[in-house]
Amino acid sequence: MAFARDQWYVAAYDSEVGRDLLARTVLGEPLVLYRTGAGEAVALADRCVHRRYPLSESRLDGDTIVCGYHGFTYDPTGACVFVPGQQRIPRTARVASYPVVEQDSFVWVWIGDRDRADPAAIPRAPWLADPRYAVVRDMAPLNARYELLVDNLMDLSHETYLHGGYIGTPEVASTPITTEVDEERGIVYVSRHMDDAECPPFYARSTGIQGRITRWQDIEYHPPCLYLLHSRIAPRGVLPPAEGADSEAFHAEIVYAITPSTAHTTYNFWAVARDFAIDDESVGEYLYNSNRTVVTQDVTALDILERVIAAEPADRQELSINIDTGGLAARRLLARMVGSGTVGVPR
Amino acid sequence: MAFARDQWYVAAYDSEVGRDLLARTVLGEPLVLYRTGAGEAVALADRCVHRRYPLSESRLDGDTIVCGYHGFTYDPTGACVFVPGQQRIPRTARVASYPVVEQDSFVWVWIGDRDRADPAAIPRAPWLADPRYAVVRDMAPLNARYELLVDNLMDLSHETYLHGGYIGTPEVASTPITTEVDEERGIVYVSRHMDDAECPPFYARSTGIQGRITRWQDIEYHPPCLYLLHSRIAPRGVLPPAEGADSEAFHAEIVYAITPSTAHTTYNFWAVARDFAIDDESVGEYLYNSNRTVVTQDVTALDILERVIAAEPADRQELSINIDTGGLAARRLLARMVGSGTVGVPR
Amino acid sequence: MAFARDQWYVAAYDSEVGRDLLARTVLGEPLVLYRTGAGEAVALADRCVHRRYPLSESRLDGDTIVCGYHGFTYDPTGACVFVPGQQRIPRTARVASYPVVEQDSFVWVWIGDRDRADPAAIPRAPWLADPRYAVVRDMAPLNARYELLVDNLMDLSHETYLHGGYIGTPEVASTPITTEVDEERGIVYVSRHMDDAECPPFYARSTGIQGRITRWQDIEYHPPCLYLLHSRIAPRGVLPPAEGADSEAFHAEIVYAITPSTAHTTYNFWAVARDFAIDDESVGEYLYNSNRTVVTQDVTALDILERVIAAEPADRQELSINIDTGGLAARRLLARMVGSGTVGVPR
Repeated sequence: MAFARDQWYVAAYDSEVGRDLLARTVLGEPLVLYRTGAGEAVALADRCVHRRYPLSESRLDGDTIVCGYHGFTYDPTGACVFVPGQQRIPRTARVASYPVVEQDSFVWVWIGDRDRADPAAIPRAPWLADPRYAVVRDMAPLNARYELLVDNLMDLSHETYLHGGYIGTPEVASTPITTEVDEERGIVYVSRHMDDAECPPFYARSTGIQGRITRWQDIEYHPPCLYLLHSRIAPRGVLPPAEGADSEAFHAEIVYAITPSTAHTTYNFWAVARDFAIDDESVGEYLYNSNRTVVTQDVTALDILERVIAAEPADRQELSINIDTGGLAARRLLARMVGSGTVGVPR
Repeated sequence: MAFARDQWYVAAYDSEVGRDLLARTVLGEPLVLYRTGAGEAVALADRCVHRRYPLSESRLDGDTIVCGYHGFTYDPTGACVFVPGQQRIPRTARVASYPVVEQDSFVWVWIGDRDRADPAAIPRAPWLADPRYAVVRDMAPLNARYELLVDNLMDLSHETYLHGGYIGTPEVASTPITTEVDEERGIVYVSRHMDDAECPPFYARSTGIQGRITRWQDIEYHPPCLYLLHSRIAPRGVLPPAEGADSEAFHAEIVYAITPSTAHTTYNFWAVARDFAIDDESVGEYLYNSNRTVVTQDVTALDILERVIAAEPADRQELSINIDTGGLAARRLLARMVGSGTVGVPR
Repeated sequence: MAFARDQWYVAAYDSEVGRDLLARTVLGEPLVLYRTGAGEAVALADRCVHRRYPLSESRLDGDTIVCGYHGFTYDPTGACVFVPGQQRIPRTARVASYPVVEQDSFVWVWIGDRDRADPAAIPRAPWLADPRYAVVRDMAPLNARYELLVDNLMDLSHETYLHGGYIGTPEVASTPITTEVDEERGIVYVSRHMDDAECPPFYARSTGIQGRITRWQDIEYHPPCLYLLHSRIAPRGVLPPAEGADSEAFHAEIVYAITPSTAHTTYNFWAVARDFAIDDESVGEYLYNSNRTVVTQDVTALDILERVIAAEPADRQELSINIDTGGLAARRLLARMVGSGTVGVPR
């Protein structure tokens, strides 16, 4: 396993970054995040140049970080502006700073060669910051390598077995998928359109639909980090109109940001944006609790799987079938990214 | 260290295997055990062929196991009979099944080449399923390599020091042993006959004998897994008659099944079968509690020793004396077994 | 990293060694310490020659240790005087004994070649056993390599940042140091004389001084184990007289014994001896609690730093400045000691 460097990754939600120091490790690189008095998000290497003490264990003084061990002080660019016991500040006293972009409620950081960082390349999840949608969200850390979460999300047939009673029904596992890969833009699409399906509690209780449904799951995975699931729920037989708004259907935009932390740990940012009942807090609370339960089921299963795989030889046998087409395509694109960027060796 | 494959090992007590899935790791191989509706014990490899998810984290559907991640379904032979999203089941979709024999209240599994599995080769412990005996038993997992438990049980002089106040008295350590090895059948015999010994509480309270005793300890070790201690307790001077039943003595058949789990963990199945006070539940309760205490003393000591040994070089120095004759013979037979079978590399 | 062998190390306070067995690991060598009936401190290798069981898990019988597993018995010289089941004691049955010297309330042990052990080479900390001083002391184990504690103590500018509110004031970080190395005797001296400094609570409350102070910190480090901080506190402007006692000042002799346990753990013996308020128990209690808090702050920081450094390559970058002169000199002397003695490989 290796990480894809020279890529944008979600390090935090915007609301997590403030005037307290936040430690996050992305692709094995320890970061400290904070916000200046003017509100700008900053990401610096989380190690003092002096004796490697984590700056996240320290404190802010205005817009600077004062190392909690010996007081080496850094400005938001990473430059050291004070050292103890002497006036002269060594020229090399500087910690790395990381390009940061806030977009769609995420704080994206660029891991790799700064000169290659292009904010326009960051994939979008506009529903998360769109007033026409109501959003519930959280972050669940995994003690598992990020590939396991990619596998998990690319193959939703597991909903039937791991998430029965929440979002899984028999039709998810039994309905074939179609998979497409946009090689140029580097996107994997997986679609499963269920025309006559049981409505799982997750949608029955939140939409109020009674009886069977038309349920569409359209996945877009933008490796390495952003995963979108466009979920369309409508009474059975109700298809989108040829023109105009799809107003008889309910839409949930389910977003995951999958950020490798270390070789065996992953940040799992998840959000559910809905275009229905957006002012009904009880629906929001229900969807938050339900999806948190679903995510916890995934975390539990993937943490188990990590321990299994970590104990096995790297060339262990797997058996892939049709449902894995999307996951295998994702693995291929990820491997290509690892190959083309600066290759990182996970710690 | 290596494991002896192509051998029978106790994976569970018969009562542990039922309609719930039981996970056990034997010689580093993860197994899932269950019982079919018809009552037959089944042992399969505990890893789904698809993505290596543990089947023991799943559920039974009739006699089949349905993987809890994506629903791959296996029959008791290990054949896959269902996969999600498609009708065709890949020919190679099969998990290993293990030969299983239920005997003497144990569930024995064969680890190695199926074609070499001979149920007649399983050593016997008939007292555990004989109505003329009352049995107390349990299983204590060790965080220690199995050789340490073999060493421990082959040299009972430790009873005096580690188990004083329970089963140890000064005579155990001071009385010389005789050791014999049946090279052909692969059995080690160690005997210690104490003619005039203090009666430890374990036997004083359970038999009611007052005063000093004749105490015989006759060990039979059938490597790798089965250890028998024939314990004969009688008033001092009472020897077995030349003919007929030894009815003036009390007999305890103490059985251990020693099953390597991983390179550094071991299952320690222990049972005490007695031919006296077999209907007296208070004696059973007393012997259960006492032996559990004794086993816990061993587990504590061996877990300490494992940490010591794991931190030392493999060629550490030991000093063996007469009391170790049986243990050294056991080590030699085990090494021979490792050499003759398929050699397993512990994980 | 390697350890400096052929050196004296503090294994315990004298009061810790008594008629109970005390386990300590010094330079990776497991020791068991106890005191004979006549009061002599004994240090033996903490592993029975038979099966490597820790003797510290055993018990004393008079002046001998009886192994808790099989009863092998050792006298204070390490000679085996009893084995179970036979009269003959093997000639090689002996555990290593370590030269021990009790001095200045410490139990020093020699790790290395016995023939090179010279008690006269042990550095002194006489205040710890001098009735003209009152002493508070304790031991705080670190989950960090000992070099980190040496670094910490050689550069007291960290007091300002890590120990603000206890012993740190701005002047500690801002006042330059002078460093001297006695190459022949192998001692590092670091001095910081603050002529006009804020009085930290540690000294304000214990001495009763009001207002600003003259504060001298004079460090003597005797690698590898003994660190002395001569702390002189006086009202601002009060210097020692040209002749006679320095009776207008308060003196605290702060002593650390820094003993490597394993490659990643360290014993941190600390003591504060004062020549003022020696009969005032409330001052002693206050200084004990304050210094324990300060030491805990160091332990917390160094344990964090150990995890940081253990995850990084050995050739990680550091940036040293003037304040590090003493620490770098200490590292150099330690490296020389490692080079000249028998080099130990930490486990």
